[in-house]
Amino acid sequence: MRVVVTGGSGFIGSHVAEEFVRRGRDVAILDVRPPPDIGPAVSQCRFVPADLTDLDSMTLALAGADVVCHLAGVGDVYLAAREPYTAAHRNATGTAHVLEAALRANVKKVVYASTWEVYGEPHYQPLDERHPCNPDHPYNITKYAGELLALSYDRLKDLPVLALRLGTAFGPRMRPNSVFSLFIGRASRGEPITIQGTGEQARQFTHARDIARAFAIAAESNLRCEVFNIVSDEATSVRRLAELVSSRFPTAIDYAPSRAGEIQSARVSARKASQLLRWEARVSFEEGLNELLDAAVWAPVAG
Amino acid sequence: MRVVVTGGSGFIGSHVAEEFVRRGRDVAILDVRPPPDIGPAVSQCRFVPADLTDLDSMTLALAGADVVCHLAGVGDVYLAAREPYTAAHRNATGTAHVLEAALRANVKKVVYASTWEVYGEPHYQPLDERHPCNPDHPYNITKYAGELLALSYDRLKDLPVLALRLGTAFGPRMRPNSVFSLFIGRASRGEPITIQGTGEQARQFTHARDIARAFAIAAESNLRCEVFNIVSDEATSVRRLAELVSSRFPTAIDYAPSRAGEIQSARVSARKASQLLRWEARVSFEEGLNELLDAAVWAPVAG
Repeated sequence: MRVVVTGGSGFIGSHVAEEFVRRGRDVAILDVRPPPDIGPAVSQCRFVPADLTDLDSMTLALAGADVVCHLAGVGDVYLAAREPYTAAHRNATGTAHVLEAALRANVKKVVYASTWEVYGEPHYQPLDERHPCNPDHPYNITKYAGELLALSYDRLKDLPVLALRLGTAFGPRMRPNSVFSLFIGRASRGEPITIQGTGEQARQFTHARDIARAFAIAAESNLRCEVFNIVSDEATSVRRLAELVSSRFPTAIDYAPSRAGEIQSARVSARKASQLLRWEARVSFEEGLNELLDAAVWAPVAG
Repeated sequence: MRVVVTGGSGFIGSHVAEEFVRRGRDVAILDVRPPPDIGPAVSQCRFVPADLTDLDSMTLALAGADVVCHLAGVGDVYLAAREPYTAAHRNATGTAHVLEAALRANVKKVVYASTWEVYGEPHYQPLDERHPCNPDHPYNITKYAGELLALSYDRLKDLPVLALRLGTAFGPRMRPNSVFSLFIGRASRGEPITIQGTGEQARQFTHARDIARAFAIAAESNLRCEVFNIVSDEATSVRRLAELVSSRFPTAIDYAPSRAGEIQSARVSARKASQLLRWEARVSFEEGLNELLDAAVWAPVAG
């Protein structure tokens, strides 16, 4: 099975690439920048420089692929807020290019990285996959457009697609502007941690290795034209995260106004993924956080 | 009031430009091609060549505008089905460029041309604006992405926006591949008319002049961050259309399989527009159709 991971040089994408290497697959990383130097698994991947905003580039790059895991795009919600047009260009148009290229290459399965944030304001909780989607921020709007386009390629053009609505991911190689990187970076340097808003907003933080396993299961599954929440059951507040970080690296916690467009808490159910894909999160929040804190002891986070 | 109509050289856009000229506004048509030569109203508009896929081009073109009516993009559902990436590029990314350019130009109101097709499969009827949106075709998916981005510019960046979910438009200057143009063209040449599917699929055909009036009302209204169905109450089946055409230009009617992704019938309510905008369709289906048939007597439609 020849697996292409778009965005494989990024945070979640590099975990997905590693997971397929571990399973003995032939993996190519498609990205605009080369993958990080993170050890033997990713060094076994071929790196194919390709830009998803260019259809010809994607068409060439996907020739011969069996499975495409599509994670490239704007994953930074703050960049999406500042430049909605960049988010639209990469997440909507870019995804359409990947889908078209996959169709031309007779790819057998596309697994699309969507987000739990597509639901918007909850009408009921926990949010399951039948809940209406009312995305309200350029990040989740453009990710949702990509998801809808992916499912339309399955229905109208017979390209098998699964879409995974990912929980807020955490783990090694997180972005430097993630709340984890900011808190751990500042606390490890003895600087105070700032919580935006009350800190009561909770997230079902889902470990990148668990997410990567969901991509592998989805790629190998016979299901298609389906959407799955891929979200850990365990909810943790931002305040609790700050407390755990400051219990390892003692520092002050202060508060600032919440950012515009901040996504509020909502419970998300991964029951469908458990039932149909036999996927469940395995890495607990504490285990995943301790791994990040341990790494910061040896190599303080810049920022 | 300086009004910019993107896509003003197109079918609905040219009616919108005419409506604003009739109201004494200073109108600029922004399009990649010049407006059609259709008489005094449109000849009073300035034509500004601009490509909505280029943010710099849009930023220059919108300087000094008070109102932007945004109709440019892929309006042809068959083109969108063949090239979803083109639809995404123009309808999602292109709309984001228009919004960003409008924000930079301190535009006071953007009126966005959305479509009743964003609703997808009806859960109840008639469809009102609170019905969930489940767009299922590259055309309505990308139009919906543009709508959501427009509303997010209102909420997050304080750019006043109204979105009009337009009914299936008809009237002078329709596209040559519209069902009206095809039927009238063939019948006026004595060729048989082919109905795709059963012909029972009904549409609330809404006249382009009525739609143009809705844009003018929306531009002048103090409302913002709202969505309105702009749809005639009168539903007409495709079979009925074929019968009316063949009663003027006698010809045979035959049947072919329906096209993939064909949108099924659904009743749409324009009650909110009637209540809050005082908009109602005024041109009856028969009146609008007769105007098209009369024109075809004198100038048979090519095709």
